[in-house]
Amino acid sequence: MIQTEIGYTTPDTISVRGKNLATELLGHIDFVDMIIFVFYGRLPDPREKAMLNLLLVLTTDHGLTPSAVSARLTYLGAPEALQGAVAAGLLGAGSVFLGNAQNVAEMLRDGAASLSDESSDEAILLRAKELVHEAKAKKSRIVGLGHNIHVDGDPRIPVLIAQSKAHGFFGKHWRLLLAVEQVLSESRRKKLPINAGGGVGAIMAEMNLDPLLGRGVALIGRCAGLIAHVAEERDRPIGLELWDLILQQDPRNVLPE
Amino acid sequence: MIQTEIGYTTPDTISVRGKNLATELLGHIDFVDMIIFVFYGRLPDPREKAMLNLLLVLTTDHGLTPSAVSARLTYLGAPEALQGAVAAGLLGAGSVFLGNAQNVAEMLRDGAASLSDESSDEAILLRAKELVHEAKAKKSRIVGLGHNIHVDGDPRIPVLIAQSKAHGFFGKHWRLLLAVEQVLSESRRKKLPINAGGGVGAIMAEMNLDPLLGRGVALIGRCAGLIAHVAEERDRPIGLELWDLILQQDPRNVLPE
Amino acid sequence: MIQTEIGYTTPDTISVRGKNLATELLGHIDFVDMIIFVFYGRLPDPREKAMLNLLLVLTTDHGLTPSAVSARLTYLGAPEALQGAVAAGLLGAGSVFLGNAQNVAEMLRDGAASLSDESSDEAILLRAKELVHEAKAKKSRIVGLGHNIHVDGDPRIPVLIAQSKAHGFFGKHWRLLLAVEQVLSESRRKKLPINAGGGVGAIMAEMNLDPLLGRGVALIGRCAGLIAHVAEERDRPIGLELWDLILQQDPRNVLPE
Amino acid sequence: MIQTEIGYTTPDTISVRGKNLATELLGHIDFVDMIIFVFYGRLPDPREKAMLNLLLVLTTDHGLTPSAVSARLTYLGAPEALQGAVAAGLLGAGSVFLGNAQNVAEMLRDGAASLSDESSDEAILLRAKELVHEAKAKKSRIVGLGHNIHVDGDPRIPVLIAQSKAHGFFGKHWRLLLAVEQVLSESRRKKLPINAGGGVGAIMAEMNLDPLLGRGVALIGRCAGLIAHVAEERDRPIGLELWDLILQQDPRNVLPE
Repeated sequence: MIQTEIGYTTPDTISVRGKNLATELLGHIDFVDMIIFVFYGRLPDPREKAMLNLLLVLTTDHGLTPSAVSARLTYLGAPEALQGAVAAGLLGAGSVFLGNAQNVAEMLRDGAASLSDESSDEAILLRAKELVHEAKAKKSRIVGLGHNIHVDGDPRIPVLIAQSKAHGFFGKHWRLLLAVEQVLSESRRKKLPINAGGGVGAIMAEMNLDPLLGRGVALIGRCAGLIAHVAEERDRPIGLELWDLILQQDPRNVLPE
Repeated sequence: MIQTEIGYTTPDTISVRGKNLATELLGHIDFVDMIIFVFYGRLPDPREKAMLNLLLVLTTDHGLTPSAVSARLTYLGAPEALQGAVAAGLLGAGSVFLGNAQNVAEMLRDGAASLSDESSDEAILLRAKELVHEAKAKKSRIVGLGHNIHVDGDPRIPVLIAQSKAHGFFGKHWRLLLAVEQVLSESRRKKLPINAGGGVGAIMAEMNLDPLLGRGVALIGRCAGLIAHVAEERDRPIGLELWDLILQQDPRNVLPE
Repeated sequence: MIQTEIGYTTPDTISVRGKNLATELLGHIDFVDMIIFVFYGRLPDPREKAMLNLLLVLTTDHGLTPSAVSARLTYLGAPEALQGAVAAGLLGAGSVFLGNAQNVAEMLRDGAASLSDESSDEAILLRAKELVHEAKAKKSRIVGLGHNIHVDGDPRIPVLIAQSKAHGFFGKHWRLLLAVEQVLSESRRKKLPINAGGGVGAIMAEMNLDPLLGRGVALIGRCAGLIAHVAEERDRPIGLELWDLILQQDPRNVLPE
Repeated sequence: MIQTEIGYTTPDTISVRGKNLATELLGHIDFVDMIIFVFYGRLPDPREKAMLNLLLVLTTDHGLTPSAVSARLTYLGAPEALQGAVAAGLLGAGSVFLGNAQNVAEMLRDGAASLSDESSDEAILLRAKELVHEAKAKKSRIVGLGHNIHVDGDPRIPVLIAQSKAHGFFGKHWRLLLAVEQVLSESRRKKLPINAGGGVGAIMAEMNLDPLLGRGVALIGRCAGLIAHVAEERDRPIGLELWDLILQQDPRNVLPE
């Protein structure tokens, strides 16, 4: 039968995961509860909720990122369609930026399957070396490390680690990711720091949440940031100046005086 | 100068609206605070926050809507790109479904400009009649009313009204929308009920928030619902059956046995 | 009944507009034929086909436009999904850039309804003045004129006009648009030249094609350009440099040395 | 330097791949020429052009596919934004449907690297067995085979093969794909036919074109089909009926009478 467990509708009710949206959910739970409720059909516990808020706030905005610039340039051509500008911004949340939390969570979940939270530091380090070795052999990239701006360490990572410890979500996945950072930084003789996607992925794995939800959380968070960028673009536009700036980099382009 | 007031970055800080993301925002504010903070540079007050949670929960999901079906059908072809499936689902949030809160908020803000919260019922009704008359003259459609399923009244509207009253956001905009509902229902001799987009739009206008944020809230909320649909599609797929079901409606299509 | 006139499928045939795709279309018609065939169920005549090729070539690419930049920045985060980068680039084809041919074609079709190809220059000019006057009264913008780079005249317009004349598609719509250009340029005492979207829109109206197809042609053409940009971005990336360049405009952003 | 080889702009010229768009390209080359010209900076030869037309016509439309349905459902909510509906339809062109030509072309290019067009049938078959074996070992899926409707063979494949032979593009890649089809069909004791994406991928590999352009061609072609679907949805809508049809599959959904 073609049906979803997520919900159904009649002329006088809307049911989401078995609850009446109007009378049992509206005004009874908040949005972060709802994110987990619509996904899993259960409410988050307070520790999960604190961590989810952390991850959503984390991913909301970081200034003129590629996703914010794409949204603004899209708005320039189609100001009648906020949803198009937001979609353009979200489409960059793939395996490299913003969406890579999913890939990190999958890597850590699979990579740490043979470990436990009580594994020794040596066992963790050994496993990290294996993962780096396997990636080299397959010519694949270890995800979740490296940043073009925060080259000496992403300032958000210490906070994510402290909060993870405070809420009981610092275990084998975080330890494995930190060991991978150590192994890679030593072999390159240059810090290759864990990035925000790495941190979000580690936390999703620690919380035993679906890796897909790791990319999902980044999409929800960034959605809020992009809406703010579009509103600012409407009120104090920079899109045309961005276009000019980009063209001016190539002397063959000539702009009118 | 090409810059955004939303934020900037240095190797060791990320600033959002003048606050240090790592040390002043992460763990200090929750995501609903952040939605308002990134947009306006201020925190919501408790009443605003309660209403925003209401609107976000409201728009998260309603089962197999067009946006959920688009996301699932997109995932079918491109399972490697959650962001594409979510974008496909959000792109339908335009002036007719899901995104129409923006249009309703604009209509009520402009339409009620000459009214006050203390205006008499007669004055409100008169203004409603004018709006309906103007729309007819311009052959434009009054937005925020009518629903293909909830034909006798959207079950969410009474809750939205009760919560608006409880939090002090029931004024001239809600009253004008209810009057428009009355005028249109009488002229058609058939109930034309306020729909969810109508309710969200009225609340955005009452809260004096940017109409764009009305569509924005729907995008953020629905983002969460779409992620749940994609996860379910991955685990218990219905996309291929949906495709078959649609083809079977036209007897010229013949499927293999 | 839920069906489309566009086509149907059986285990051993695919029918498009009543023709067998495998045996009657593949190898028998070319893609520009197919664009018209799938839309109208008929083939274009040679003059239409020449004009469509012109419009498709016209819209394919103009260097680092907002749509090309959005596609490149999207690819940066999600290199596994070409379709996402292309979609991000196309989403800017709205009422202002790239997609405005649709709006121009609608304006000229409606605006010239009372005219004929034989109308006198005076009648055309009078109608242009009325249109400008109506737009001012409604505080709406006349679309299809003005360009941020080609301020003294878009170099493509004389070619479009010459080709339109050569193929018998220079009539009241082109003349009305040129008259609007004259009226607006005189009232502003500064040239406000017809832009490419204006030219495409005029031609769609002259050819009596669906205005929606005007925006559609721009989407098909630009699709080809965006694919070239993504391929170049993969081979000789500039996305990260673009990001840095944009950040460097605001001295509060500090990049690593 | 931040620049693209694709083109640049001055107030009175637009240059694409070194040619003046207005005076050297418009009216001088057709759109299929332009697809190759903007990508490679050269024109296609007649055999390439014939094949590209074939592939573009092939991918344009197949009735109510997932991409057409997504576009129609998106238009339902946002009729003001054709580009959004088209983008929603294109976003499904990933590794499974429509976009898989890219993945097939990559597989055949790499898989046939050790073969030549003169390799014996035995050598080709041996390589096919290796590929199937490797895929099993890596638990990955061989792409380009299998179809939910054309279970006994896709009717387009014989035409694609005949045309490939006629134009001199039937070599080791086509032969390897046919051998893979044979190996897989024998091991499953059930035909697992080459699908359209498989055929497009084989042809891209035979023509030595960029695999990315394989997915690109599908995007350009389908773009034309989606525009036709949106126009039909505007004129003879089926979107709301589709929504009802889908809801009716689950008896918990109740629609008004």
